[in-house]
Amino acid sequence: MRDAIYRHIDANQEAHLAKLRQYASQPSVSQENLGVEQCAQMLVRDFQALGCREAEIAPTPLLPSVWAYYDAGAPKTLALYGYFDTNVVGSGWDHPPFDAVVAPRAPHKRVLYGRGANNKQGLIAFLNALSSIKAAAGQLPVNLMFVCEGEEFTGSPHVPLLIDRYRHHLSKAHGMITPGPCQNAGGDVTLALGNKGCLHIELEASGEKWGRGPTGGPVHSSTMVVVDHPVWRLVHALATLYDAKENRILVDGFYDGLAKPTAEDMALLDGLAARYKGREASAIPALGPGKVDKFLNDLTGRDVFERYCFQPTMNINGLRAGYTGPGTTLWTLPQAAYCTIDHRLPPDLDPEVCCQKIRAHLDRHGFRDIGIKVMMSVGAQKLSIKDDLAQAALRVFKNWDIDPVVWPRRGASGPTGSFSQMLGLKVLGATGMSYASSHSAGNEFLVIEGDGKVGGLAELEKSYVDLLYSYASYPNPF
Amino acid sequence: MRDAIYRHIDANQEAHLAKLRQYASQPSVSQENLGVEQCAQMLVRDFQALGCREAEIAPTPLLPSVWAYYDAGAPKTLALYGYFDTNVVGSGWDHPPFDAVVAPRAPHKRVLYGRGANNKQGLIAFLNALSSIKAAAGQLPVNLMFVCEGEEFTGSPHVPLLIDRYRHHLSKAHGMITPGPCQNAGGDVTLALGNKGCLHIELEASGEKWGRGPTGGPVHSSTMVVVDHPVWRLVHALATLYDAKENRILVDGFYDGLAKPTAEDMALLDGLAARYKGREASAIPALGPGKVDKFLNDLTGRDVFERYCFQPTMNINGLRAGYTGPGTTLWTLPQAAYCTIDHRLPPDLDPEVCCQKIRAHLDRHGFRDIGIKVMMSVGAQKLSIKDDLAQAALRVFKNWDIDPVVWPRRGASGPTGSFSQMLGLKVLGATGMSYASSHSAGNEFLVIEGDGKVGGLAELEKSYVDLLYSYASYPNPF
Repeated sequence: MRDAIYRHIDANQEAHLAKLRQYASQPSVSQENLGVEQCAQMLVRDFQALGCREAEIAPTPLLPSVWAYYDAGAPKTLALYGYFDTNVVGSGWDHPPFDAVVAPRAPHKRVLYGRGANNKQGLIAFLNALSSIKAAAGQLPVNLMFVCEGEEFTGSPHVPLLIDRYRHHLSKAHGMITPGPCQNAGGDVTLALGNKGCLHIELEASGEKWGRGPTGGPVHSSTMVVVDHPVWRLVHALATLYDAKENRILVDGFYDGLAKPTAEDMALLDGLAARYKGREASAIPALGPGKVDKFLNDLTGRDVFERYCFQPTMNINGLRAGYTGPGTTLWTLPQAAYCTIDHRLPPDLDPEVCCQKIRAHLDRHGFRDIGIKVMMSVGAQKLSIKDDLAQAALRVFKNWDIDPVVWPRRGASGPTGSFSQMLGLKVLGATGMSYASSHSAGNEFLVIEGDGKVGGLAELEKSYVDLLYSYASYPNPF
Repeated sequence: MRDAIYRHIDANQEAHLAKLRQYASQPSVSQENLGVEQCAQMLVRDFQALGCREAEIAPTPLLPSVWAYYDAGAPKTLALYGYFDTNVVGSGWDHPPFDAVVAPRAPHKRVLYGRGANNKQGLIAFLNALSSIKAAAGQLPVNLMFVCEGEEFTGSPHVPLLIDRYRHHLSKAHGMITPGPCQNAGGDVTLALGNKGCLHIELEASGEKWGRGPTGGPVHSSTMVVVDHPVWRLVHALATLYDAKENRILVDGFYDGLAKPTAEDMALLDGLAARYKGREASAIPALGPGKVDKFLNDLTGRDVFERYCFQPTMNINGLRAGYTGPGTTLWTLPQAAYCTIDHRLPPDLDPEVCCQKIRAHLDRHGFRDIGIKVMMSVGAQKLSIKDDLAQAALRVFKNWDIDPVVWPRRGASGPTGSFSQMLGLKVLGATGMSYASSHSAGNEFLVIEGDGKVGGLAELEKSYVDLLYSYASYPNPF
């Protein structure tokens, strides 16, 4: 049966590529509200064509998402999270980002260029794979519940709302997958057993809230000598939060309950240290575009990986007050200052509890007036290498003769954390056998025909097929 | 003779207004390089028409300034600083900013609307006054050296260069005036005996300079757990510079040499305290657009004025790192963070010495890598109430039956500080009897015919005439 499905995939490659190109031509830029609605409608039609029992636009207060439910009458049910919105176009394109250009790109025979080539096309290729399974095998090996979001690039503000809306279905799912290509340029496969959670906050010091300093607008900078200063206030409040020499969060109790790596984690960390000895920086996913020559505290080897996976962050990603343009023409005493901070939190640190501790810390240090606005709060997700989903993926890799790089977790976070937090779902990251790049940069592409090291569209679809059958038949794989 | 000049001014009001309107129609927006060259050429022609021995464009590396020298064969010589560039247009205009609209504006009979109505028109009205003196009296009572700048709104970067270029002339001047309207909406006249100096710097913490953290671009925020962080570094460096509770600059030796108020200053401060008892905030010039309900340390009365005039500032006017737009879509560990700080320095604190002390302070605290870029460094200017220029102005006020508010100094700074610093020139602020408003906002205007409380164009020109004669004839006024 697997051979029949593979043959169907091979025989229909040009039709499958045409489907990808159809989506590549449809913009879905959520930050600009460009085409997201149309793209959602295309998806609904394709879920209907696949034979989904339910397929509908799931409206949210902002941009639409898509819900679909395929009932295969199978004993196992997988939820699927995908997002079909894209980043803004930006610069650096040699091929127009919505022209669906397919062209050679050394060393690959063919790639598909376009904004969304990573995430949107990874999802469409999955739908192609499903249609081949249905055509060749008659039925899918698992039931599938699709939650396809149109707001990932605006911070996934309504995923919890979607979960609540479809909770009666989703609570029956046995696990969650997130289809997409997972190879790097050299063909290596990385599997991360979960993500960190995220608490993203904005701190505000202002004359308005403080009851001191300027209100209603900035005042002339010369008056600073007699007027209280919200920016200096924020600077001093920030300085109490984080020790930049010891690289330690200073909020009382912030680290309470933080778990140490388990024996399973330790074995994985040892594996990473051995694999990346002397080139640890190259191992950290998604480091770029910047370059890092040495790690903090001059960490090397396993210590880098342990800290990366098991310690929380308190990262200032934005700081703004007064004039923030080039040069300075407006000299004022600003009426407010803002700092946005994202915290990446291992599973044992609850984002909401961490936020309460930051509030209590600021209060104790005399900064009751400094406001905290929660921009995002999402839980971590945690998968054991012994879990069915991980084992299903590892057996596919083994079958494909691939030795994956397995991380105890990613340092980043994702909206799938909400599914773990609200439904207790285990989530498997991307495991598809292809390579996509420049997720948010110019010339974003997905490999359609690879160079031997990385797969193309056919391999991507086949690996999806294998994952579903591997999971469906566990503990007895095909 | 004074009556003859006054009569000439009255008889030529429409011609004088036409001259103002000609300049009002000529944009001179330095930040946008819009019309500055043309406006400079107009000025040169008008200086030539006045009979200046020298009148020329004074080229600078960026925008042109104008130099003119009128040799009246008089024993006394005054330098004049003016600026003919304007701020950008911005919003809030009911009358097009370059249409030279003259219209009633309650309670005033007529005002001239236009960008530059404050500074540019103050200068042109002065030229009108000079032409009336020449027509009615045959000759000016003093020699005049005009330094008219076209880059004030870009920070006066080339004033020192202009001073060097015309030093052979300027070193012979006995003092400097800065023509312009000086009344507020109620007709009150404020005279400030000098300005503070200014040191404007930009601090930069970056992976590049530090040799730690990201270089060549930001990295993903999740990597912060193992990567050094330039923004936290800047926060901690800043926290060492200023105590926001005690409102005190913490740089070692920063206050060294700071003079206490003299007996003359004390008398002026007492005068201010008595005049503004219970409404100190309304007294501070140029506080707005923001509002200040209480001063730092809960200062009241004379303490406000003493601190305002005699203490230095360290004002953060801009803070930027990472994403500084609304919301947050780019979560990174920024490769650099910047803070712009302006210091307003009483005459005893040299801007360059202060900058060296900040450098030494950062070095001592382990922040050798934090860069300091000097954006502006200009000295203070200091005038005694006993100086000829101050006395000349006070006699005009007395003659006009005005009781001026006299400040020991302004808390702000200005490019005229360079003339004091480089030539030792005493500088008199604006003393013209009219009222202009909205210097950098919409609907900027100059009163042409006042309401009885404030003067119009004729009074402005007459007060210029009186100042020149008052100064020329001191100690025996007209």
